[in-house]
Amino acid sequence: MHSTRSDAQETLTFETRGRGLFEVTAEIAGVVDRSGIRLGLCVVYCRHTSASLLIQENADPTAARDAEEWFERLAPEGDPRYSHTLEGPDDMPAHLRSAVTSTSETIPVGEGKLVLGTWQGLFLFEHRTRPQRRELVVHVQGTA
Amino acid sequence: MHSTRSDAQETLTFETRGRGLFEVTAEIAGVVDRSGIRLGLCVVYCRHTSASLLIQENADPTAARDAEEWFERLAPEGDPRYSHTLEGPDDMPAHLRSAVTSTSETIPVGEGKLVLGTWQGLFLFEHRTRPQRRELVVHVQGTA
Amino acid sequence: MHSTRSDAQETLTFETRGRGLFEVTAEIAGVVDRSGIRLGLCVVYCRHTSASLLIQENADPTAARDAEEWFERLAPEGDPRYSHTLEGPDDMPAHLRSAVTSTSETIPVGEGKLVLGTWQGLFLFEHRTRPQRRELVVHVQGTA
Repeated sequence: MHSTRSDAQETLTFETRGRGLFEVTAEIAGVVDRSGIRLGLCVVYCRHTSASLLIQENADPTAARDAEEWFERLAPEGDPRYSHTLEGPDDMPAHLRSAVTSTSETIPVGEGKLVLGTWQGLFLFEHRTRPQRRELVVHVQGTA
Repeated sequence: MHSTRSDAQETLTFETRGRGLFEVTAEIAGVVDRSGIRLGLCVVYCRHTSASLLIQENADPTAARDAEEWFERLAPEGDPRYSHTLEGPDDMPAHLRSAVTSTSETIPVGEGKLVLGTWQGLFLFEHRTRPQRRELVVHVQGTA
Repeated sequence: MHSTRSDAQETLTFETRGRGLFEVTAEIAGVVDRSGIRLGLCVVYCRHTSASLLIQENADPTAARDAEEWFERLAPEGDPRYSHTLEGPDDMPAHLRSAVTSTSETIPVGEGKLVLGTWQGLFLFEHRTRPQRRELVVHVQGTA
Protein backbone atom coordinates (compact mmCIF):
# COMPACT_ATOMS: atom_id res chain seq x y z
CA MET A 1 0.00 0.00 0.00
CA HIS A 2 1.24 3.47 -0.87
CA SER A 3 0.94 6.08 1.87
CA THR A 4 -1.16 9.07 0.84
CA ARG A 5 1.45 11.61 1.86
CA SER A 6 0.93 15.11 0.58
CA ASP A 7 1.79 18.83 0.71
CA ALA A 8 -0.97 21.46 0.69
CA GLN A 9 -0.14 25.16 0.43
CA GLU A 10 -2.50 28.13 0.49
CA THR A 11 -1.89 31.87 0.72
CA LEU A 12 -4.48 33.65 2.88
CA THR A 13 -5.04 37.40 2.69
CA PHE A 14 -6.22 39.49 5.63
CA GLU A 15 -7.22 43.15 5.77
CA THR A 16 -6.10 44.39 9.19
CA ARG A 17 -7.77 47.30 10.97
CA GLY A 18 -4.48 48.90 12.02
CA ARG A 19 -2.29 48.15 15.01
CA GLY A 20 -3.36 45.19 17.14
CA LEU A 21 -3.87 41.45 17.43
CA PHE A 22 -6.28 39.73 15.00
CA GLU A 23 -7.13 36.10 15.66
CA VAL A 24 -6.71 33.85 12.60
CA THR A 25 -7.03 30.42 14.26
CA ALA A 26 -10.22 29.48 12.40
CA GLU A 27 -8.78 30.41 9.00
CA ILE A 28 -5.62 28.34 9.60
CA ALA A 29 -7.72 25.39 10.83
CA GLY A 30 -9.70 25.68 7.60
CA VAL A 31 -6.56 25.05 5.54
CA VAL A 32 -5.80 21.95 7.63
CA ASP A 33 -9.37 20.68 7.10
CA ARG A 34 -9.22 21.21 3.32
CA SER A 35 -5.82 19.44 3.10
CA GLY A 36 -7.29 16.18 4.38
CA ILE A 37 -4.06 15.61 6.32
CA ARG A 38 -4.61 13.76 9.60
CA LEU A 39 -1.04 13.49 10.96
CA GLY A 40 1.68 16.01 10.13
CA LEU A 41 2.82 19.59 10.42
CA CYS A 42 1.20 22.96 9.74
CA VAL A 43 3.56 25.88 9.07
CA VAL A 44 2.24 29.44 9.13
CA TYR A 45 4.50 32.03 7.52
CA CYS A 46 4.03 35.84 7.60
CA ARG A 47 5.31 37.56 4.44
CA HIS A 48 5.95 40.92 6.13
CA THR A 49 8.50 42.75 8.29
CA SER A 50 6.04 45.09 10.01
CA ALA A 51 3.47 42.44 11.00
CA SER A 52 4.11 39.13 12.73
CA LEU A 53 2.59 36.04 14.37
CA LEU A 54 1.82 35.44 18.01
CA ILE A 55 0.33 32.43 19.77
CA GLN A 56 -1.42 33.78 22.86
CA GLU A 57 -4.37 33.37 25.18
CA ASN A 58 -7.62 33.87 23.30
CA ALA A 59 -10.05 33.69 26.20
CA ASP A 60 -9.74 37.11 27.87
CA PRO A 61 -9.45 40.21 25.65
CA THR A 62 -7.62 42.12 28.42
CA ALA A 63 -4.60 39.83 27.86
CA ALA A 64 -4.41 40.90 24.20
CA ARG A 65 -4.74 44.59 25.09
CA ASP A 66 -2.05 44.39 27.78
CA ALA A 67 0.26 42.64 25.31
CA GLU A 68 -0.32 45.28 22.62
CA GLU A 69 0.49 48.08 25.08
CA TRP A 70 3.56 46.31 26.46
CA PHE A 71 5.04 45.93 22.96
CA GLU A 72 4.34 49.63 22.34
CA ARG A 73 6.40 50.48 25.43
CA LEU A 74 9.15 47.98 24.56
CA ALA A 75 9.80 49.56 21.13
CA PRO A 76 8.22 53.02 21.35
CA GLU A 77 7.32 55.29 18.50
CA GLY A 78 9.24 58.52 18.10
CA ASP A 79 12.53 57.44 19.68
CA PRO A 80 15.01 60.05 18.35
CA ARG A 81 17.71 57.35 18.07
CA TYR A 82 15.99 55.72 15.05
CA SER A 83 17.52 56.62 11.64
CA HIS A 84 14.99 54.61 9.60
CA THR A 85 12.13 57.13 9.59
CA LEU A 86 11.42 57.60 5.89
CA GLU A 87 8.36 55.30 5.94
CA GLY A 88 6.83 57.05 8.96
CA PRO A 89 7.30 57.05 12.75
CA ASP A 90 5.47 53.71 13.13
CA ASP A 91 7.72 51.79 10.72
CA MET A 92 10.89 51.15 12.73
CA PRO A 93 8.96 50.21 15.92
CA ALA A 94 6.97 47.82 13.68
CA HIS A 95 10.18 46.10 12.53
CA LEU A 96 11.41 45.77 16.13
CA ARG A 97 8.11 44.36 17.45
CA SER A 98 8.17 41.90 14.53
CA ALA A 99 11.77 40.96 15.37
CA VAL A 100 10.93 39.80 18.90
CA THR A 101 7.74 37.94 17.96
CA SER A 102 7.45 35.28 15.17
CA THR A 103 7.62 35.26 11.39
CA SER A 104 7.01 31.49 11.26
CA GLU A 105 5.21 29.09 13.59
CA THR A 106 4.99 25.32 13.19
CA ILE A 107 2.05 23.53 14.80
CA PRO A 108 1.76 19.74 14.67
CA VAL A 109 -1.46 18.21 13.30
CA GLY A 110 -2.96 15.16 15.04
CA GLU A 111 -6.26 13.43 14.20
CA GLY A 112 -6.78 16.07 11.53
CA LYS A 113 -6.62 19.01 13.98
CA LEU A 114 -4.00 21.54 15.10
CA VAL A 115 -2.71 20.39 18.50
CA LEU A 116 -3.23 23.84 20.07
CA GLY A 117 -3.59 24.04 23.83
CA THR A 118 -6.97 24.82 25.36
CA TRP A 119 -6.30 28.55 25.73
CA GLN A 120 -4.12 29.09 22.67
CA GLY A 121 -5.10 31.12 19.63
CA LEU A 122 -2.94 32.13 16.67
CA PHE A 123 -2.92 35.88 16.03
CA LEU A 124 -1.75 38.08 13.19
CA PHE A 125 -0.05 40.99 14.95
CA GLU A 126 -0.36 44.19 12.90
CA HIS A 127 2.30 46.70 13.96
CA ARG A 128 1.53 49.57 11.55
CA THR A 129 -0.91 52.25 12.66
CA ARG A 130 -3.08 52.08 9.54
CA PRO A 131 -4.97 49.11 8.04
CA GLN A 132 -2.86 46.92 5.75
CA ARG A 133 -3.37 43.98 3.40
CA ARG A 134 -1.36 41.03 4.83
CA GLU A 135 -0.51 37.58 3.44
CA LEU A 136 0.06 34.40 5.41
CA VAL A 137 1.33 31.31 3.62
CA VAL A 138 -0.01 28.13 5.24
CA HIS A 139 1.69 24.84 4.40
CA VAL A 140 0.44 21.45 5.65
CA GLN A 141 2.61 18.38 5.17
CA GLY A 142 1.78 14.85 6.32
CA THR A 143 -0.38 11.78 5.76
CA ALA A 144 -4.12 11.45 5.21
CA MET B 1 12.09 0.44 -3.59
CA HIS B 2 9.65 2.31 -1.39
CA SER B 3 11.15 4.92 0.94
CA THR B 4 10.30 4.31 4.58
CA ARG B 5 9.07 7.83 5.17
CA SER B 6 7.08 8.35 8.33
CA ASP B 7 5.57 10.72 10.91
CA ALA B 8 5.94 10.05 14.64
CA GLN B 9 4.10 12.16 17.21
CA GLU B 10 4.28 11.96 21.00
CA THR B 11 2.92 14.23 23.75
CA LEU B 12 5.31 14.52 26.69
CA THR B 13 4.17 15.77 30.09
CA PHE B 14 6.43 17.62 32.51
CA GLU B 15 5.79 18.71 36.09
CA THR B 16 7.66 22.00 36.52
CA ARG B 17 8.93 23.22 39.90
CA GLY B 18 7.70 26.80 39.34
CA ARG B 19 9.38 29.65 37.51
CA GLY B 20 12.61 28.81 35.70
CA LEU B 21 14.32 26.89 32.91
CA PHE B 22 14.05 23.08 32.83
CA GLU B 23 16.19 21.22 30.35
CA VAL B 24 14.25 18.71 28.23
CA THR B 25 16.89 17.88 25.59
CA ALA B 26 17.19 14.21 26.62
CA GLU B 27 13.43 13.65 26.54
CA ILE B 28 13.13 15.17 23.04
CA ALA B 29 16.10 13.13 21.81
CA GLY B 30 14.30 10.05 23.15
CA VAL B 31 11.34 10.70 20.83
CA VAL B 32 13.72 10.99 17.86
CA ASP B 33 15.39 7.70 18.84
CA ARG B 34 12.06 5.88 19.15
CA SER B 35 10.87 7.22 15.78
CA GLY B 36 13.68 5.45 13.92
CA ILE B 37 13.95 8.50 11.64
CA ARG B 38 17.52 9.17 10.46
CA LEU B 39 17.04 12.25 8.22
CA GLY B 40 14.25 14.77 8.75
CA LEU B 41 12.74 17.37 11.06
CA CYS B 42 11.82 17.41 14.75
CA VAL B 43 9.20 19.96 15.80
CA VAL B 44 8.68 20.73 19.49
CA TYR B 45 5.44 22.53 20.32
CA CYS B 46 4.45 24.00 23.71
CA ARG B 47 0.69 23.84 24.38
CA HIS B 48 0.65 26.80 26.81
CA THR B 49 0.61 30.60 26.89
CA SER B 50 2.40 31.01 30.23
CA ALA B 51 5.29 28.62 29.52
CA SER B 52 7.51 28.52 26.42
CA LEU B 53 10.60 27.02 24.77
CA LEU B 54 14.15 28.32 24.77
CA ILE B 55 17.28 26.94 23.13
CA GLN B 56 20.18 28.16 25.28
CA GLU B 57 23.60 27.30 26.64
CA ASN B 58 23.41 24.26 28.88
CA ALA B 59 27.01 24.20 30.13
CA ASP B 60 27.10 26.95 32.78
CA PRO B 61 24.10 27.28 35.14
CA THR B 62 24.86 30.99 35.69
CA ALA B 63 23.74 31.66 32.09
CA ALA B 64 20.32 30.17 32.83
CA ARG B 65 19.98 32.15 36.07
CA ASP B 66 20.97 35.42 34.41
CA ALA B 67 18.44 34.76 31.64
CA GLU B 68 15.63 34.04 34.12
CA GLU B 69 16.33 37.27 36.00
CA TRP B 70 16.62 39.33 32.80
CA PHE B 71 13.18 38.16 31.62
CA GLU B 72 11.77 39.01 35.06
CA ARG B 73 13.05 42.59 34.63
CA LEU B 74 11.87 42.79 30.98
CA ALA B 75 8.24 41.99 31.88
CA PRO B 76 8.02 42.63 35.62
CA GLU B 77 5.34 41.42 37.99
CA GLY B 78 3.04 43.98 39.55
CA ASP B 79 3.14 46.61 36.80
CA PRO B 80 0.02 48.73 37.54
CA ARG B 81 -0.56 49.15 33.79
CA TYR B 82 -1.69 45.51 33.39
CA SER B 83 -5.49 44.99 33.22
CA HIS B 84 -5.31 41.19 32.97
CA THR B 85 -4.82 40.42 36.67
CA LEU B 86 -7.67 38.03 37.42
CA GLU B 87 -5.43 34.93 37.26
CA GLY B 88 -2.83 36.43 39.60
CA PRO B 89 0.05 38.92 39.40
CA ASP B 90 2.34 36.37 37.69
CA ASP B 91 -0.04 35.62 34.80
CA MET B 92 0.33 38.64 32.49
CA PRO B 93 4.15 38.73 32.84
CA ALA B 94 4.05 35.00 31.99
CA HIS B 95 2.17 35.73 28.73
CA LEU B 96 4.67 38.48 27.80
CA ARG B 97 7.74 36.35 28.52
CA SER B 98 6.15 33.58 26.43
CA ALA B 99 5.46 36.05 23.62
CA VAL B 100 9.14 36.99 23.19
CA THR B 101 10.48 33.43 23.45
CA SER B 102 9.23 30.41 21.41
CA THR B 103 6.06 28.35 21.25
CA SER B 104 7.50 26.12 18.48
CA GLU B 105 11.05 25.15 17.57
CA THR B 106 12.07 23.03 14.57
CA ILE B 107 15.37 21.16 14.79
CA PRO B 108 16.67 19.14 11.82
CA VAL B 109 17.56 15.48 12.37
CA GLY B 110 20.70 14.07 10.73
CA GLU B 111 22.15 10.55 11.17
CA GLY B 112 19.33 9.89 13.62
CA LYS B 113 20.27 12.75 15.96
CA LEU B 114 19.12 16.33 16.58
CA VAL B 115 21.68 18.63 14.92
CA LEU B 116 22.05 20.77 18.09
CA GLY B 117 25.24 22.78 18.49
CA THR B 118 27.82 21.72 21.07
CA TRP B 119 26.56 24.11 23.77
CA GLN B 120 22.85 24.06 22.93
CA GLY B 121 20.15 22.60 25.13
CA LEU B 122 16.38 22.81 24.71
CA PHE B 123 14.60 24.16 27.78
CA LEU B 124 11.00 24.34 28.89
CA PHE B 125 10.66 27.84 30.36
CA GLU B 126 8.07 27.93 33.15
CA HIS B 127 6.84 31.49 33.70
CA ARG B 128 4.28 30.90 36.48
CA THR B 129 5.44 31.11 40.09
CA ARG B 130 3.97 27.78 41.14
CA PRO B 131 4.62 24.27 39.75
CA GLN B 132 2.49 23.39 36.73
CA ARG B 133 1.77 20.32 34.58
CA ARG B 134 2.98 21.16 31.02
CA GLU B 135 2.60 19.35 27.69
CA LEU B 136 5.00 19.41 24.77
CA VAL B 137 3.97 17.81 21.47
CA VAL B 138 6.99 16.38 19.65
CA HIS B 139 6.60 15.51 15.97
CA VAL B 140 9.33 13.84 13.90
CA GLN B 141 8.96 13.63 10.12
CA GLY B 142 11.47 12.10 7.70
CA THR B 143 13.04 8.91 6.39
CA ALA B 144 14.47 5.92 8.25
CA MET C 1 3.47 6.63 -10.08
CA HIS C 2 5.78 7.16 -7.12
CA SER C 3 6.04 10.72 -5.83
CA THR C 4 9.58 12.06 -5.86
CA ARG C 5 9.47 13.18 -2.26
CA SER C 6 12.80 13.88 -0.65
CA ASP C 7 14.81 15.42 2.18
CA ALA C 8 17.91 17.53 1.47
CA GLN C 9 20.16 18.71 4.27
CA GLU C 10 23.26 20.92 4.05
CA THR C 11 25.37 22.62 6.71
CA LEU C 12 26.55 26.08 5.63
CA THR C 13 29.47 27.83 7.34
CA PHE C 14 29.78 31.61 7.61
CA GLU C 15 32.65 33.73 8.90
CA THR C 16 31.03 36.74 10.55
CA ARG C 17 32.79 40.10 10.88
CA GLY C 18 31.73 40.61 14.50
CA ARG C 19 28.48 42.01 15.89
CA GLY C 20 25.78 42.75 13.34
CA LEU C 21 23.32 41.43 10.77
CA PHE C 22 24.65 39.45 7.78
CA GLU C 23 22.22 38.62 5.03
CA VAL C 24 22.23 34.92 4.03
CA THR C 25 19.11 34.83 1.82
CA ALA C 26 21.03 33.93 -1.37
CA GLU C 27 22.93 31.08 0.31
CA ILE C 28 19.69 29.56 1.70
CA ALA C 29 17.98 29.93 -1.70
CA GLY C 30 20.94 28.06 -3.20
CA VAL C 31 20.21 25.02 -0.99
CA VAL C 32 16.56 25.07 -2.13
CA ASP C 33 17.69 25.25 -5.79
CA ARG C 34 20.12 22.34 -5.40
CA SER C 35 17.45 20.22 -3.64
CA GLY C 36 15.21 20.25 -6.71
CA ILE C 37 12.22 20.50 -4.38
CA ARG C 38 9.34 22.54 -5.86
CA LEU C 39 6.73 22.34 -3.07
CA GLY C 40 7.62 21.91 0.58
CA LEU C 41 9.35 23.42 3.60
CA CYS C 42 12.77 24.94 4.20
CA VAL C 43 14.02 24.93 7.79
CA VAL C 44 17.02 27.05 8.77
CA TYR C 45 18.63 26.16 12.10
CA CYS C 46 21.38 28.12 13.90
CA ARG C 47 23.74 25.88 15.92
CA HIS C 48 24.77 28.61 18.38
CA THR C 49 23.58 30.39 21.55
CA SER C 50 25.34 33.71 20.88
CA ALA C 51 24.19 34.15 17.28
CA SER C 52 20.66 33.83 15.91
CA LEU C 53 18.35 34.29 12.92
CA LEU C 54 16.24 37.28 11.97
CA ILE C 55 13.90 37.83 9.04
CA GLN C 56 13.90 41.58 8.41
CA GLU C 57 13.68 44.28 5.78
CA ASN C 58 16.63 44.05 3.40
CA ALA C 59 15.98 47.18 1.34
CA ASP C 60 17.18 50.02 3.58
CA PRO C 61 20.41 49.52 5.58
CA THR C 62 19.28 52.06 8.21
CA ALA C 63 16.63 49.53 9.35
CA ALA C 64 19.35 46.95 10.07
CA ARG C 65 21.50 49.48 11.93
CA ASP C 66 18.58 50.70 14.05
CA ALA C 67 17.72 47.10 14.91
CA GLU C 68 21.31 46.29 15.93
CA GLU C 69 21.44 49.32 18.23
CA TRP C 70 18.02 48.63 19.73
CA PHE C 71 19.05 45.08 20.69
CA GLU C 72 22.24 46.50 22.23
CA ARG C 73 20.09 48.74 24.44
CA LEU C 74 17.59 45.96 25.24
CA ALA C 75 20.30 43.65 26.66
CA PRO C 76 23.25 45.94 27.35
CA GLU C 77 26.85 44.93 27.89
CA GLY C 78 28.36 45.44 31.32
CA ASP C 79 25.18 45.15 33.40
CA PRO C 80 26.54 44.43 36.91
CA ARG C 81 23.60 42.07 37.56
CA TYR C 82 25.02 39.40 35.19
CA SER C 83 26.83 36.50 36.92
CA HIS C 84 27.80 34.72 33.69
CA THR C 85 30.86 36.83 32.80
CA LEU C 86 33.62 34.23 32.45
CA GLU C 87 33.46 34.25 28.64
CA GLY C 88 33.65 38.05 28.41
CA PRO C 89 31.30 41.02 28.83
CA ASP C 90 29.69 40.41 25.42
CA ASP C 91 28.68 36.79 26.13
CA MET C 92 25.60 37.10 28.37
CA PRO C 93 24.08 39.94 26.28
CA ALA C 94 24.66 37.66 23.27
CA HIS C 95 22.65 34.86 24.89
CA LEU C 96 19.80 37.26 25.74
CA ARG C 97 19.67 38.79 22.25
CA SER C 98 19.62 35.24 20.85
CA ALA C 99 16.82 34.29 23.25
CA VAL C 100 14.42 36.96 21.94
CA THR C 101 15.19 36.39 18.23
CA SER C 102 15.11 32.99 16.45
CA THR C 103 17.15 29.80 16.55
CA SER C 104 14.97 28.16 13.87
CA GLU C 105 12.86 29.59 11.05
CA THR C 106 10.64 27.59 8.69
CA ILE C 107 9.89 29.08 5.27
CA PRO C 108 7.53 27.33 2.85
CA VAL C 109 8.78 26.58 -0.69
CA GLY C 110 6.45 27.11 -3.65
CA GLU C 111 7.29 26.73 -7.35
CA GLY C 112 10.86 25.94 -6.30
CA LYS C 113 11.37 29.22 -4.43
CA LEU C 114 11.21 30.43 -0.82
CA VAL C 115 7.89 32.28 -0.38
CA LEU C 116 9.59 35.32 1.19
CA GLY C 117 7.75 38.64 1.04
CA THR C 118 9.00 41.39 -1.27
CA TRP C 119 11.00 43.16 1.46
CA GLN C 120 12.08 40.16 3.50
CA GLY C 121 15.64 38.93 3.85
CA LEU C 122 17.00 36.22 6.16
CA PHE C 123 19.88 37.42 8.33
CA LEU C 124 22.44 35.69 10.52
CA PHE C 125 22.64 37.91 13.61
CA GLU C 126 26.10 37.80 15.18
CA HIS C 127 25.94 38.93 18.81
CA ARG C 128 29.61 38.52 19.80
CA THR C 129 31.95 41.49 19.36
CA ARG C 130 34.62 39.56 17.44
CA PRO C 131 34.34 37.59 14.19
CA GLN C 132 33.17 33.99 14.62
CA ARG C 133 32.75 30.87 12.49
CA ARG C 134 29.00 30.02 12.46
CA GLU C 135 27.05 27.02 11.17
CA LEU C 136 23.51 27.00 9.82
CA VAL C 137 21.83 23.67 9.05
CA VAL C 138 19.40 24.01 6.14
CA HIS C 139 16.85 21.24 5.62
CA VAL C 140 14.43 21.13 2.67
CA GLN C 141 11.59 18.61 2.65
CA GLY C 142 8.97 18.21 -0.06
CA THR C 143 8.23 17.06 -3.59
CA ALA C 144 10.04 17.71 -6.86
